[in-house]
Amino acid sequence: MSNAPGYFVSFEGGDGVGKSTHVRLLGRWLGEVTGREVVTTREPGGTQLGAQLRQAVLHGEDMGPRAEALLYAADRAHHVATVVRPALGRGAIVVTDRYLDSSVAYQAGGRELSEDDVERLSLWATGGLLPDVTVLLDLDPAAGAARLSGTPDRLERAGEDFHRRTREAFLRRAAADPGRWLVVDASATRDDVQAQLRVDVAARLDLTPVVDEATSAEGRA
Amino acid sequence: MSNAPGYFVSFEGGDGVGKSTHVRLLGRWLGEVTGREVVTTREPGGTQLGAQLRQAVLHGEDMGPRAEALLYAADRAHHVATVVRPALGRGAIVVTDRYLDSSVAYQAGGRELSEDDVERLSLWATGGLLPDVTVLLDLDPAAGAARLSGTPDRLERAGEDFHRRTREAFLRRAAADPGRWLVVDASATRDDVQAQLRVDVAARLDLTPVVDEATSAEGRA
Repeated sequence: MSNAPGYFVSFEGGDGVGKSTHVRLLGRWLGEVTGREVVTTREPGGTQLGAQLRQAVLHGEDMGPRAEALLYAADRAHHVATVVRPALGRGAIVVTDRYLDSSVAYQAGGRELSEDDVERLSLWATGGLLPDVTVLLDLDPAAGAARLSGTPDRLERAGEDFHRRTREAFLRRAAADPGRWLVVDASATRDDVQAQLRVDVAARLDLTPVVDEATSAEGRA
Repeated sequence: MSNAPGYFVSFEGGDGVGKSTHVRLLGRWLGEVTGREVVTTREPGGTQLGAQLRQAVLHGEDMGPRAEALLYAADRAHHVATVVRPALGRGAIVVTDRYLDSSVAYQAGGRELSEDDVERLSLWATGGLLPDVTVLLDLDPAAGAARLSGTPDRLERAGEDFHRRTREAFLRRAAADPGRWLVVDASATRDDVQAQLRVDVAARLDLTPVVDEATSAEGRA
């Protein structure tokens, strides 16, 4: 757990596994059962600067792996300094769609940089801030790709082998730090995955529900 | 000297010392006396991505020192990978208006990060590429400020004390590595500074003039 009075939860996994949906649903539920402020956010792009950087990285001119890693780290530094840390300091629950493990898995697991270098960069960027819980929504990349629609961005186009290596990197990181990671099978239905998440995340954060009626109302919704 | 067949020269110093003028004049002269291709460039902003980042850093929303350092490093990584290294590989002379010493002097000397951290970041970004010669155009910050016109950007507005500490950081770095640095008094006239630069840079690079007539023609211009 971080020293701040809030809680910090990150979601990780490949494209099409349902991260943004579950961030939204879990965030709303956590607010209802704890009465706390909830901030749902994402990387890259959780700030005005981040939105510019997200555009440059995903849709701009080609760049090498070091420039890309540094841009993601810059986005993360700004996001943590201006959004995440202030919210945690207020006692809020912050739920983010991707955090530093995505950088390590995509940039090191999938490409040519070392995991240590990419992790060190992110830890320097954030002053060492790690999530209290990191959820890995784990899914076969082929199943994730089938769920996606619209024009693919640069990462989505990167190919099967890249996405397989990225998944393996996520699983390896989760296995190495089971105290922080929660691995959830994302091939189940949306409702089943969300139900599982509520039980497991609440247990990990040791949250005491303060609004029981909201919990049961949400359960029926 | 780097391993590439070209030569790499960087100009450093505060605002208003004449870096962009001398980069242009020295670059043209070096091309004439050596017959080599010359690439004059700058940081931040020497690439399309860099121009976006320069805009974000100097005119965008406020950001913390880590995000700023990472953006400059991303710009540098991209600039080196797509402009500087390819040119050096072709045997060109690259002359850049600012390089990694600016990051160290401005971000560490002037603000709250450690010099070691900022330097390590830049060396990682560039794969360890250092200039063959780094010219410090040294000038009292008050004299530099008096030469500037137009709307000041964020760095230019940062205050006297900041610019004094930055100058001291440049001088300290130059003193610590006299084999790479060339310190030139920028309070002399433009022509005198340029004449001094031609003598000193040519000596450092051990360049053999191949077009003597161009040299003397340029000397009369």
